[in-house]
Amino acid sequence: MVRRHQGISVNAKQQQQPSSVGAVRSQYADFDSPFSFASGARLPSWRLAYESYGELNEKKTNAVLICHALSGSQHAAGYYEGGEESAGWWDNFIGPGKPVDTGDFFVLSPNNLGGCHGSSGPASPHPEDGKPYGSRFPVVTVEDWVRAQAALADRLGIQQFAAVVGGSLGGMQALRWAVDYPDRLRAAVAVAAAAKLSALNIAFNDIARQAILRDPHFHGGDYYGRGEFPRGGLGVARMLGHVTYLSGPAMAAKFGRARRAASARFDYETEFEVESYLRYQGAKFSGVFDANTYLLMTRALDYFDPAAECEGDLARAFAKAGGEFFLLSFSSDWRFPPSSSRELARALLAAGKRASYIEVQTEEGHDSFLLANPVYHEAVRAFMSRLAQTL
Amino acid sequence: MVRRHQGISVNAKQQQQPSSVGAVRSQYADFDSPFSFASGARLPSWRLAYESYGELNEKKTNAVLICHALSGSQHAAGYYEGGEESAGWWDNFIGPGKPVDTGDFFVLSPNNLGGCHGSSGPASPHPEDGKPYGSRFPVVTVEDWVRAQAALADRLGIQQFAAVVGGSLGGMQALRWAVDYPDRLRAAVAVAAAAKLSALNIAFNDIARQAILRDPHFHGGDYYGRGEFPRGGLGVARMLGHVTYLSGPAMAAKFGRARRAASARFDYETEFEVESYLRYQGAKFSGVFDANTYLLMTRALDYFDPAAECEGDLARAFAKAGGEFFLLSFSSDWRFPPSSSRELARALLAAGKRASYIEVQTEEGHDSFLLANPVYHEAVRAFMSRLAQTL
Repeated sequence: MVRRHQGISVNAKQQQQPSSVGAVRSQYADFDSPFSFASGARLPSWRLAYESYGELNEKKTNAVLICHALSGSQHAAGYYEGGEESAGWWDNFIGPGKPVDTGDFFVLSPNNLGGCHGSSGPASPHPEDGKPYGSRFPVVTVEDWVRAQAALADRLGIQQFAAVVGGSLGGMQALRWAVDYPDRLRAAVAVAAAAKLSALNIAFNDIARQAILRDPHFHGGDYYGRGEFPRGGLGVARMLGHVTYLSGPAMAAKFGRARRAASARFDYETEFEVESYLRYQGAKFSGVFDANTYLLMTRALDYFDPAAECEGDLARAFAKAGGEFFLLSFSSDWRFPPSSSRELARALLAAGKRASYIEVQTEEGHDSFLLANPVYHEAVRAFMSRLAQTL
Repeated sequence: MVRRHQGISVNAKQQQQPSSVGAVRSQYADFDSPFSFASGARLPSWRLAYESYGELNEKKTNAVLICHALSGSQHAAGYYEGGEESAGWWDNFIGPGKPVDTGDFFVLSPNNLGGCHGSSGPASPHPEDGKPYGSRFPVVTVEDWVRAQAALADRLGIQQFAAVVGGSLGGMQALRWAVDYPDRLRAAVAVAAAAKLSALNIAFNDIARQAILRDPHFHGGDYYGRGEFPRGGLGVARMLGHVTYLSGPAMAAKFGRARRAASARFDYETEFEVESYLRYQGAKFSGVFDANTYLLMTRALDYFDPAAECEGDLARAFAKAGGEFFLLSFSSDWRFPPSSSRELARALLAAGKRASYIEVQTEEGHDSFLLANPVYHEAVRAFMSRLAQTL
């Protein structure tokens, strides 16, 4: 049948009503051999936490790797038993009848190295002294993450992914996969990604880091076990990040200049609705996320720049890349704007790769990659459906 | 003669070579009667620091009031004796042969109430106990500033300004002057201003404030005399402000992804040039500016919204405004974008006022109002020359 939605036509099988993958739990892969980072640092042993949804087929050809962004985790879909409100961060995107359909695919979603949700990270015990790594945890790069994910794929017997999929920093991982393991994926789906951060983006990252590094509870990164946590600085970092993931028009529509009280308070307490919202977001995040991980993730973003290995020639950097590419961007995203995805698409085409690009009209800014915009979701669904037909 | 420059033609007198107003010094006006704030708070007595350049004519009709922005001071032009490098913040704009020509005008430049350059502010001694006001200093509004400036004009015998001129928050003061003292100015020149802050702008201000308020050296605003100063938080606030005053393309052109070292450092020290630049700006600013003043200035920005007094009808808010209006904006300014100045221009025209608007093409973002863009400067020069002909 041909289904039409918002101008996109899809040859799809009879589509089922989208639903949740249901209750999930994290699994853990422990590696006893050392992990060597791009920096030269090493972990003597390491662990990746991950979740999986759907069934791996017999030929192991239907695996999809989900790469998370700055503040993500392995919990991309479903919910935790007893916590039905704890939906995964991409639950609208992954599941039965959803764009990444677990009726077709085995979806693998790891927490990245340096994370704070079960993979080896700054809060993990150092094998030598059993104390948290803290400031001793190495600065990690996108290349490192991809190499660790490949080791996890080896462990699970997955030789080739049907697709590696991610948004923002996750999209950068999908691109890195195509360059570093050209034979191990059939497609890279990079949503709201970029070939590298701009000076503006590096600046925002550094300001967020400074807010954390200057918090006296940070203790140089070795704050574990002190009963103090740099929540203030991490909250400011998150507030800043959050603002830049939205668009000005979306914020104007959502909050405008609305006040929580009828008249001016003449102080610095929460007065405008937008202040209330942001402080809530900052406080919530700083209660569940690790400041050291936030530092690591932002630095990995800064460093990502595959063209730098080829004197800035992005097409040359993609010359050896494998698989086909599907790029999406959002019109109101000013952190990873459409121009960044167009730059990627042009370079991929110049490198002779098969690449498609869609710019989705939205008002929701960078955050759009997490939202259920129908054009965006239908486009990914169509792309993934085509992949599913040739598993 | 007709002089042509970048497409703007000006009927100007024989123009002299632009030069500095030379060595200047601050003056002080002390007021023994109380000052009542919009909030209802009062100062029993108060002081304004100011500088002046040029000569007040006999009829006292050639005075121009300069209103400073968030981080400004009374030191707008010239230099301090013995510190020839200490040029005023608008020295390219004010002086002999400059857009605001001190050969024509007597230029009056006060430091606003709540400031940290000599006017009554949080660091000033409270008359009751001689200790710094600190957290006791009232939250101040643009209306308060304008009323204090009017008292200074009274003190100097200036009944009517030829023009009230300001950029950014200074432009908001110029607009407020026209509404609150319609007979006391002939023209308002508002550069890169807005009728009100957007939700995005309020959000950036609140994040900056949170960085200061959460600094443990802030001590609730009463940090004076403790040997501690919330420099860390104020530095982060300034870094954030600074980034948003630039444009993405300008930062890309100026810094790109240039590194200070050839290869990655794999830490959080200064690595990218843009980090180095921003941290330097933050450190420099936090060494000379008062954190309490930064809080006051940003809150005054948040509160400015003359249309709110007329159910959001900006044209009605301007109905009683006096003088003519000259508005300028900069194409790459995303904090006070051209759309904000166009909104002002439309409302002024709808209110039957005489208003001109120029959008200047620049890559320099909001900071453009402080830079010597020739189109911008020629436009202001032309406007001010016309005013000078009818003094």
